[in-house]
Amino acid sequence: MKKEFYAAILSGGSGERFWPLSTSARPKQFLSVFGGRSLLRQSVERLKGVVPPERIIIVTGAALAKATYRELPEIPRRNILLEPCRRDTAAAVATACTAVERLGGADAVAAVLTADQLMEDVAAFRRILRLAAETAATTDDIVTMGVKPTYPATGFGYIKVGRPCGKVFRAERFVEKPDLATAKKYLKSGRYVWNAGMFVWKVATLKAMLARYAPQLVGITPKDYARLPKISFDYAVMEKAKNVLVTAGDFGWDDVGTWTSAARHLGTDAAGNARRGRSTLLDCARSVVVAEGAPVAALGVEDLVIVTTKDAVLVAAKDRAQDLKKLLAEMAAKSDIPKKENKRR
Amino acid sequence: MKKEFYAAILSGGSGERFWPLSTSARPKQFLSVFGGRSLLRQSVERLKGVVPPERIIIVTGAALAKATYRELPEIPRRNILLEPCRRDTAAAVATACTAVERLGGADAVAAVLTADQLMEDVAAFRRILRLAAETAATTDDIVTMGVKPTYPATGFGYIKVGRPCGKVFRAERFVEKPDLATAKKYLKSGRYVWNAGMFVWKVATLKAMLARYAPQLVGITPKDYARLPKISFDYAVMEKAKNVLVTAGDFGWDDVGTWTSAARHLGTDAAGNARRGRSTLLDCARSVVVAEGAPVAALGVEDLVIVTTKDAVLVAAKDRAQDLKKLLAEMAAKSDIPKKENKRR
Repeated sequence: MKKEFYAAILSGGSGERFWPLSTSARPKQFLSVFGGRSLLRQSVERLKGVVPPERIIIVTGAALAKATYRELPEIPRRNILLEPCRRDTAAAVATACTAVERLGGADAVAAVLTADQLMEDVAAFRRILRLAAETAATTDDIVTMGVKPTYPATGFGYIKVGRPCGKVFRAERFVEKPDLATAKKYLKSGRYVWNAGMFVWKVATLKAMLARYAPQLVGITPKDYARLPKISFDYAVMEKAKNVLVTAGDFGWDDVGTWTSAARHLGTDAAGNARRGRSTLLDCARSVVVAEGAPVAALGVEDLVIVTTKDAVLVAAKDRAQDLKKLLAEMAAKSDIPKKENKRR
Repeated sequence: MKKEFYAAILSGGSGERFWPLSTSARPKQFLSVFGGRSLLRQSVERLKGVVPPERIIIVTGAALAKATYRELPEIPRRNILLEPCRRDTAAAVATACTAVERLGGADAVAAVLTADQLMEDVAAFRRILRLAAETAATTDDIVTMGVKPTYPATGFGYIKVGRPCGKVFRAERFVEKPDLATAKKYLKSGRYVWNAGMFVWKVATLKAMLARYAPQLVGITPKDYARLPKISFDYAVMEKAKNVLVTAGDFGWDDVGTWTSAARHLGTDAAGNARRGRSTLLDCARSVVVAEGAPVAALGVEDLVIVTTKDAVLVAAKDRAQDLKKLLAEMAAKSDIPKKENKRR
């Protein structure tokens, strides 16, 4: 492990996927329903022994500054970079690159990590992170941390794994979220990994890639956001680059993208109900019940997501969890429920 | 119509059937989701032109005194009789009888009416009430206001209609809530009416009946409640008496006994959803959504009852609405949700 290893945690998030528990003022990474501590806090704590707090950088929205300071008191405030507006991941990654260069110079190695995902096998995560760091330090390649798929997920992008290169692999191709048939094919082939949005790089390597594929992003800080386009790092850089390696490990990664996928992390009772907060269920099955607001009393219902906060109550069929954004759009259009809590920041 | 016609409205109610909107502190008769005004207020207003406020008596629980004064400012406070504890309808009817005798003497005629039911055809109700009053005034019979059944209800008791007697009928027999097959038989026979719990009597007649079947109830006031048994008037007196007549009218009566039966009075949208308060529904059907507390956002659900108050959220399968009491018992047993609001007064 290089001594000068940095981590940049991207902590954006619009708060829509776990509405009403998550809101623009408290997006998913601040929720603590998964494992007691917030996902953001977990993302810092799993770096223990790998990256010290003073080398951790957080890129987050200006509106989340106070919440982030409170959640991560050990991170120096100068390391918490506040985006004045949303410009997607390309701008966030480039901002992190500038910050790491200032702290550690062109040879510093850094990981871009996510703030709102779960990793159940932290030891495996650290092992793979170290492998990626060593590889990035000793090559001119960027090393993306792919995740070995465990089911034919249609909610993630995939990376096609190429020929071995040391202990990792060439990344042959980035592909968009597939349909179910394609996802099954990917899974069966054994040649695809999930794109978890995490990757490790040497400052000089990333800077050269930015200069080639997105020169307007070189050396930027949050002050430059107004003039930047809204574009993802994968789209702007990664998909075009040739110098991409990929790890293909398994560290219990889950992006907990919907209430339904969250259920398995909450633990279930004999009838398959996952519960948080005060609730009474009579003859209910396979439901997710999270009562942060008024307590829930449910009778004879199955396969529902029920979430209460002081501001709203969500009741959704579990198999419609992925359409939550449509519901929020409908609400915003109707203005039946105050928009303040729903709109993207 | 006799000049001295009185009405005693029984306004008990435990608040369980429409929990969480109704509670022990605000039972069903205080809800205004059906028709804008509370059911209690409607029960007084439908007597306009038939019984003046100073001849209307309310029998209610002591805990509901203030709420009743506020809801019915036109009723003299001395006419609002406060029960110190629940003793079912026999005690309430006997208490009303004592009060009417004090105001109008032994020849006064009075109706016992309910506080928590809907009557859609008020003109028909008044016509039948007047007919019952005239009959009670000129006979030594008690006249119960039966309701012509419109469907094979299993939630009400029935009265078997006997031979005609003037413009009304002899009541041949009171029967308990039937099973569905029996209810269908009753409906088909045309010889049964619903027992709506409303009846008209001359003080002297009712007093004689009490003296014969329940002598401990003669001349009682709320001060006597502690020593009284908990028993219904039907069971204590009506089912035993021979001098019972019955009307067999139709005045759009509905006891709105469950959230499901309430739905038809709330009005529905194209998908069959009945709504009160702030809610956004996407791809939902045949549901009852009442948001008095946090607004509701529902996605892809069908045949549910969803009710929010500041204290609790109910989510129930519509076909389980009649089991709400079981759910409340479960809650009370578990103490997951504060009992205060749930227990019977």
